[in-house]
Amino acid sequence: MEAYLAGPDVFLPDAREHARRKVEICARHGIVGRPPLNEDVDSLRAMPDEEAWRTIFRKDVALMEACGVVIANLTPFRGPSADAGTLVEVGWFLGRGRPVFGYSNSAEPFAERSRRQVRAVPDPMPGLSVEGFGLPDNLMVPGAVLDGGGHPMVLPPDGRDRPFDALDVFERCVEVAAWKLGLRPAPDRG
Amino acid sequence: MEAYLAGPDVFLPDAREHARRKVEICARHGIVGRPPLNEDVDSLRAMPDEEAWRTIFRKDVALMEACGVVIANLTPFRGPSADAGTLVEVGWFLGRGRPVFGYSNSAEPFAERSRRQVRAVPDPMPGLSVEGFGLPDNLMVPGAVLDGGGHPMVLPPDGRDRPFDALDVFERCVEVAAWKLGLRPAPDRG
Repeated sequence: MEAYLAGPDVFLPDAREHARRKVEICARHGIVGRPPLNEDVDSLRAMPDEEAWRTIFRKDVALMEACGVVIANLTPFRGPSADAGTLVEVGWFLGRGRPVFGYSNSAEPFAERSRRQVRAVPDPMPGLSVEGFGLPDNLMVPGAVLDGGGHPMVLPPDGRDRPFDALDVFERCVEVAAWKLGLRPAPDRG
Repeated sequence: MEAYLAGPDVFLPDAREHARRKVEICARHGIVGRPPLNEDVDSLRAMPDEEAWRTIFRKDVALMEACGVVIANLTPFRGPSADAGTLVEVGWFLGRGRPVFGYSNSAEPFAERSRRQVRAVPDPMPGLSVEGFGLPDNLMVPGAVLDGGGHPMVLPPDGRDRPFDALDVFERCVEVAAWKLGLRPAPDRG
């Protein structure tokens, strides 16, 4: 089973090494992780902007087509919600009817993060509502994960935020995916 | 043709009246606009959080299923990118192979907004890259629109930001959708 490893991980300074560690974790649980790295980045740099981004888009969609499932890093990225590209990809898998798994390194509810964002950067007009429900993101995000993979978003089990690039919550999510996909027994969480 | 009217418009204080105006604009161009309002909000309020959000999620997905196309408000919402729920919905339509149209009331490139966000709320770690390409959002967003609807995201034609709830750019987007769907001739922008 090949899993598309969606997430803002591609923006990390050590994106390639980080992806290698994610692929290794997936392999331990019987999953072939496919990170959407743009490995021919030199040829991309030589292209005009318009050609470069369209090439990346087509490559990422082709990689999604090739993967039976998505495991998405839904850790908030530059705002209270997950990374924009990752969210489009999660929706794509849900629309395709393929399983969706997701995790976040943030333990803080979405409503709290939204309020913090609005304090730092006021809304463009007053009266915009802040969604409640105690969820980790806009309800479409945990909804897509729960509906698509049959398991809630995986969050830090001790209720503590992890560093942005930590991988222990990712590994829990991979365990859940391997279980739900019938590749491994249910994780033993003692 | 029924169009799912995705967007953070549902968070506006006058969401219902605003939706009515969007539906009216759609009707002028031969499209039946379907806003994902939660009209039985009183019954939702009586539910426990978990039941309420799952009910909204199911209703929104059922409405997407019923619509042949999405017209998405991709104006930035609480961060440099579009609203999280809207992005999942855009991905869903792309994954389903149904046309995607989108617009933004912001004329500012995504890279500029990202830099502004990082100045207001520093990244959780140094060295995270900011995407370039002169695009209006993470490349997956304009990519989904261009690939899904055959037309770029519709932006303010004069390069000036619109108020968050302005509808002139939306109307241009509806015109594009009506044209691309074969309901109307190409808009005359003489």
